[in-house]
This record gives sequence, C-alpha cells and structure tokens, in this order.
Amino acid sequence: MKRSYVSELKKEQDVLLKGWVHEIRELAKLKFIILRDSSGIVQCIVKDNKNAKEIASELTLESVVEIQGKVKKANVKSEIARNDTEVEVSDIKIISKAEKLPIHVNEKTTTTDLSKRLDFRSLDLRKPKVNAIFKIQSALIEGMQNYLDKEGFVQVFTPCLMGVASESGSEVFEIKYFNKKAFLRQDPQLHRQLTILGGIEKLYDIGPSWRAEKSHTVKHLCEHRTCAVELAFIKDEKDVMKLEEETVVSAIKNVINKCKNELDFLGIKLKVPKTPFPELKFPEIYDILKEHGKDVYGEDLDTEAEKILWEYVKKKYNSDFYFFNGFPHKVKPFYVMEGDENPRWSKSVDLNFRGMEISSGGQREHRYKKIMKNLKERGISLKSVEWFIKFFKYGAPPHGGFALGIERLTQVLLGLQNIREAALFPRDTERVTP
Amino acid sequence: MKRSYVSELKKEQDVLLKGWVHEIRELAKLKFIILRDSSGIVQCIVKDNKNAKEIASELTLESVVEIQGKVKKANVKSEIARNDTEVEVSDIKIISKAEKLPIHVNEKTTTTDLSKRLDFRSLDLRKPKVNAIFKIQSALIEGMQNYLDKEGFVQVFTPCLMGVASESGSEVFEIKYFNKKAFLRQDPQLHRQLTILGGIEKLYDIGPSWRAEKSHTVKHLCEHRTCAVELAFIKDEKDVMKLEEETVVSAIKNVINKCKNELDFLGIKLKVPKTPFPELKFPEIYDILKEHGKDVYGEDLDTEAEKILWEYVKKKYNSDFYFFNGFPHKVKPFYVMEGDENPRWSKSVDLNFRGMEISSGGQREHRYKKIMKNLKERGISLKSVEWFIKFFKYGAPPHGGFALGIERLTQVLLGLQNIREAALFPRDTERVTP
Repeated sequence: MKRSYVSELKKEQDVLLKGWVHEIRELAKLKFIILRDSSGIVQCIVKDNKNAKEIASELTLESVVEIQGKVKKANVKSEIARNDTEVEVSDIKIISKAEKLPIHVNEKTTTTDLSKRLDFRSLDLRKPKVNAIFKIQSALIEGMQNYLDKEGFVQVFTPCLMGVASESGSEVFEIKYFNKKAFLRQDPQLHRQLTILGGIEKLYDIGPSWRAEKSHTVKHLCEHRTCAVELAFIKDEKDVMKLEEETVVSAIKNVINKCKNELDFLGIKLKVPKTPFPELKFPEIYDILKEHGKDVYGEDLDTEAEKILWEYVKKKYNSDFYFFNGFPHKVKPFYVMEGDENPRWSKSVDLNFRGMEISSGGQREHRYKKIMKNLKERGISLKSVEWFIKFFKYGAPPHGGFALGIERLTQVLLGLQNIREAALFPRDTERVTP
Repeated sequence: MKRSYVSELKKEQDVLLKGWVHEIRELAKLKFIILRDSSGIVQCIVKDNKNAKEIASELTLESVVEIQGKVKKANVKSEIARNDTEVEVSDIKIISKAEKLPIHVNEKTTTTDLSKRLDFRSLDLRKPKVNAIFKIQSALIEGMQNYLDKEGFVQVFTPCLMGVASESGSEVFEIKYFNKKAFLRQDPQLHRQLTILGGIEKLYDIGPSWRAEKSHTVKHLCEHRTCAVELAFIKDEKDVMKLEEETVVSAIKNVINKCKNELDFLGIKLKVPKTPFPELKFPEIYDILKEHGKDVYGEDLDTEAEKILWEYVKKKYNSDFYFFNGFPHKVKPFYVMEGDENPRWSKSVDLNFRGMEISSGGQREHRYKKIMKNLKERGISLKSVEWFIKFFKYGAPPHGGFALGIERLTQVLLGLQNIREAALFPRDTERVTP
C-alpha cells in the first residue's frame, strides 16, 4: 500500500500513514493518537480493534509509527489538525519507539529555554512552528534562484578557505592547513570579484561565511549563509539596487505561493513589497539623525541610528524594505568605490528591513590606481592583498553586487526574536554541537 | 544606448558592445578587434574612422572596451565567432587598459602549465573553453534543484563547523574556535541525518566539504561541493538509487537544453542516460574481479578494481552510469545499514561513471541498538559520537540518501583530465590562493 501524507487525506479512503506520535489521549474506551508527518497533523482513533489497542497502549510520545486505517469526517474541526478529517485505525506498527523525551515537542507555548532547545535541536525541529521556518527559508532561496537563473546568472562556488585573512584579522577563524595557515572567509566578496574578472559577467554564490565575533547577540551567528550576487558592466550602484529588489521580490512571491499553510501557522501575513524601495542617502541621513537628536556626522551607523531611521521611513514611506546609500568612504573596505560627485560618499548600499540591516553591497572599485589609493589610505599592506589586486591590472569591467544574509532575511520576515531560530544547527561563541 | 550581447547581433543593427579585447589584427589599412563578452566572440573592423583608429592603436590584449558600431554580414563565416556577422566600428572607448599579460588568454591550444594557469585563474577563466565549464556546472546544479524542488525537497544548510572530528580524525582540518577546537566537516552526512530526525522528511544541501588528504591526485580536492540528498521513510536503498537516477537525469537534461553552445564548443556530446542504471552487487562483484585475475574477496575496491568493473559494464550494459551495491559492511562507516538477508553486505551504494566514483550513499542505520553494535565493532568511543547518536533514542524513521560530488560529476561528464579544472578557485595541499 502506498503511503499517504496527512495533508492529502480524502474521506472514506483506506490509508497507510507514517510519522511521529505527537500526542496520546484517552477518553472512555477510545484511544486517540495524534499523528504528525512533514505535511501536517491528524487525529487517529483506536476503537475496538484489539490488536491495535494493545500496540497503542505501548506507544510513547515521538515514537515513529505506521498506521493503517480509514479516513472519516471528524465531528469537530480539530484545531490541531486544521481540517475536518480523522482516521479510524485498523493497524499500528511501531517502527522506532521513543524513550522519555528531554524536551517537549508538543508544546502549546514555547516554554523551553532556547539553549536547551538547541541542545536537542533534532527534537526541537519537529515542532510544527519550528519546522515551518525552514520550509519558508527554502522557498525564499528557491525564489531567489528562480529569478537569478531566469536572468542568466551563473551559479558558482567560490572558495571558503583563504590563504590570507581577508579583513581585519581579529574576527577571522584560523585553520591548520598542512604546514601553513589558512582562514575561513568572512564574505565571498573578493572571489566574486575575481570571478567577474574571469569573464563570468553575472553570477551568484549561495554559501557559508564565518565571523569569529565574540559578541553574543540575537542577530549574530558565527556561521551564516548569504545569497551573494555580482554583476559586471553596471552603470552605477543603482543597477545593483534594482537587481536586489527583484531578487527579494521573487523570493517573497515564492514564499507566498508555496508556503500558505506555514505562514498561516506562524501567524505571518507577507505582502509582496512595492518597488522601488525607498532610498535614504548620505549625507542627508545625518541631517535626519540630527533632527532626532543624534549628531554623528561622518560616522558609521549604530543600532540607535538604525532605529531612528526606521521610525523615519515608517512614517514617511510606509515600506518595510529601504536602502541606505552613500556611506562615508572612509568607514568602508578598500574595494568600495567612492562617489562620482563627492568622493567622500561611497557607492555603498545597505538593504534594511524595519531597522535591521539584511544586506550590504554597491559598486566595487575596478580601477587599479584607485584601489591602490584606497589601500594606502587604510594603511593596508600590499603584501596581504597582492593575490587579489594583481588581477585588476589586466582589464577589469565596472561591477557591483550584494550579499543578502539568508538567516537575517528569514529572521526579519518571520519576526523571530533570535537569529538562531533561523539556522538549522546554529554556531555561536559557545556552540558547535549538535 | 542599451548594451547588446555578442550572441544576439542582428544584421544592420546599431549596437553598443562591451567586453574584453580577445585579439588584435592588422591587414592593409584595416584594424580588426576581436571582442569577447560572456556570450561569445565577434570580429569588429575599424575602417577609416580616424578617432577610432587612434584609440584602436593604443589597445592591448584583454583590455576592457566599449565599442559602438553597425552589424554587417561577414564575408567569411569566422571560425572564432561561430556566426556570420561582424561589426563596423564607429566609436571605441577604453574602460580598463590591460598591462602585458602573464599568461595567454587567447590560446589555440592549452599550452600553459595548469599550476601557472591557476596562479592567474581570473585570466584563465576568461578562456571560452574554461568559462564554458562553469556555465555547464551551473546548469547541472540548476537541473538537480529543479527536480528536487518539484518533488518537494526542502533546501537546507547544515553546519560546516563540527565540535567533534566526524571520521578518522587524521584527514580533518582543525580550527581554533575561540578557546576550543572545531573541525571542518568531511561530509554533511551526519547533520543531514539529524535533520531527517528533525522531521524534515525530504531535504537537500548543496555546500562545501573538506578533506585534509595529502594525496595529490587528479581526482581529489581539499575543498569540494556536493549535492547531498536525504529521504525519510524509504523501503530500502533502492529508493535512494531511484532518487539519484532522477536527480542525475534532470541535471543532464538541463545541460543539454541550456548549454548547446558550450557543449559544442568543448566538443562534448551528452546524452540523457537510460534508467534504471545497471547495478553490480556484492559479493558477485568479487566473482567478476576474480574472473579478471583480481582476487580481493571482502576488501574495499581500489582503482584497478574500478577499472576492471568499468570494462565489464561497458561490454555488458553499454551504460556510462552504474551502481555498486552491497559493499562489505566492515569497510563502511558506523552509520551504514547492514543487509537484510546477509548482514555482511551493507546497504551501501556508489554511483560510478566510466570507472570513476561520483557519489556514495545508501540506507542509514536508524535503529539505536544496531548503531551501538556498529560503533562497538569499529572501536569508536561513544564519547566522540554521543552528540549524534543520542537523537536516535527519540523516534527515528528509516532513511537514506546520497552525496553527489559536483566537481567530480563536472569532470567526468566533460572528460576533464584534472578535477582542478572543475573548481573555480581550487584548493589542494599546495594551493590556497588566489
């Protein structure tokens, strides 16, 4: 007999179900087994089948079982099953019997401490609300890929291991690499640029990056994923912003189409965001901040500044997504291009969602002399970047791109308190297992 | 004026082209610039436009230029341009002038040593034949994803950093992780299983793995990518084999549809492989080997054995793809399930292509007691795997999967001599840059 999924049950159908025991209840002479599979939850009733009753009495929560039975109309539309069917059980088989659980899977409210939940992540992931997060994340990525594939972007894999620490050094994980040292990349940025210089004019790279930051916040992970996109022969950073808008819109559309149940279940209403996203520009951003009592001309934005600007955007534009463009060139890395009109304001763009940065990008510096100038201004030794900058001597097109944080995007869209909720098995300063 | 790509030129059209100077020729009073962009190559002729002539005389190979002109019918169908158009130049602009090149991009034959080519990989990637490899690789992955997405597989990201060395220890890269040690995963295997135990019943994970193997061969990289798929509630390893066949077929179909030019250019004729792929089983495999003079009963297969078996398959089945099923349980890791009929032959399957292993997989052991037995037989300490095996106590469904090597698949399909040709910026024992 072919397996049926819980979400596909039709009345009067004979079915074979497979899944986990979500709940067990008894009422008079009836035994109720609430069965959960990856598609949903259904109530199964053991009436007077002696054999099934015996097996049911041995059942423990979260055991894996096979249940045969007939689909019936339920008297009450069960809140948990979210439909009006139930299954009258004719046979049960225990595939894998569960021991006493260290954490509850079937929680009405999430009372277990996050750290303990993560210690037992495979159990935690079974909670329908937790499971839903990763179906939505998958649909987000699929939506991005659909758009990028359609537009002719080549999916590439740039290396994770770097021979030289890419940025400040202090926040980089170091590896014993045979008799040398190597480092985990902080961003696929530099190799994306080298791939553009390799004549692949449109590309994207979905993969991990690492930050050895000691800060233990609700928005940082030591290992995270980005969808990183790069495009050659752009006119300016506006081309990158357009590309990013389209990528985000395609991601969200795909979630709305594919994950209706999951969104309902999480109580999230997603709307396709209107494009173009509002754009706030430096140095005007400093004026807005000053009007709100924060005078930080020339400095990078801190969390408080981000909050003020979100309040401003909310009132003025009614848009969750918005760009900051033109960050001070001096606070940005050497590969960022300075502005055309005023070199002080760079072509550096962040995408934000309700006060949270979810991506950064912009136009890169492709002119060898300007790169050298940027390095000098920042006191970066040529030796540490020679492996990278040498390629800019042999014909480099104008280019730019962005790296969208996948866990961050998932977190902000679903309103998750902690970014760890958006990573399957999160890594932070204290945690490298399970 | 909107940019045109070289592959889309229509006769008598006014165009703006952007790209790299692939070749410069002079003939009497004419100057020929062969322009290359990501879509192809076209010949541009500078006739008597004085300004353009002056700029053209300054041009160097691999400079980035913008060319305006009119598309004409070419007298001869150019071998290089692969079509019968050329462009009469009205204006040229040099965007980025190239210095003297350290390696040739426009090679008739690949004479440069691979190591030097990789030192200057961004130049090497510009060669149309090298560039084509990565467009094909991208289409392979897109084809896999199309199939897996359609079938409801959830795309997930399992962690790269492990708190405990996953396998033998000797071949694992070690990381300084704050005040602890961590390790780069050799395979996303274990976390794929933990995700299955987390109730995500169908999943795939495309991402990097690392092997600190000192062997310097043409088929090993220190960093490689797999498309790793896992499926719950399988009957046995046959379900995994079917899934793998469909994934590979979808990948190859997508390449045939999308990469006609690239395949032509590399001189590769791809056919959609017939399914089911032939299956050779242990212990019968040992009989075949013995008939061919190789008596290795009970041992793992070496390169010579793989060659003999490929000769056998070629004659008997006329199929490039074929499975080996039922490897000796004792040579396989602890998470592999032993056979039902004879526990000596495990449910462990390799997929091969013309004598080269491109994936391994099969059914995993989900029964806690059997996992404990496997660990004991292998002398593995409980402490090193407790973080993983503890989850099998709380309800584990039967499951299985495979991990397909993306660079390996690219290498064998395109007949590349060295797997480094199939990695954008390969990492091996000597190389971590560029």
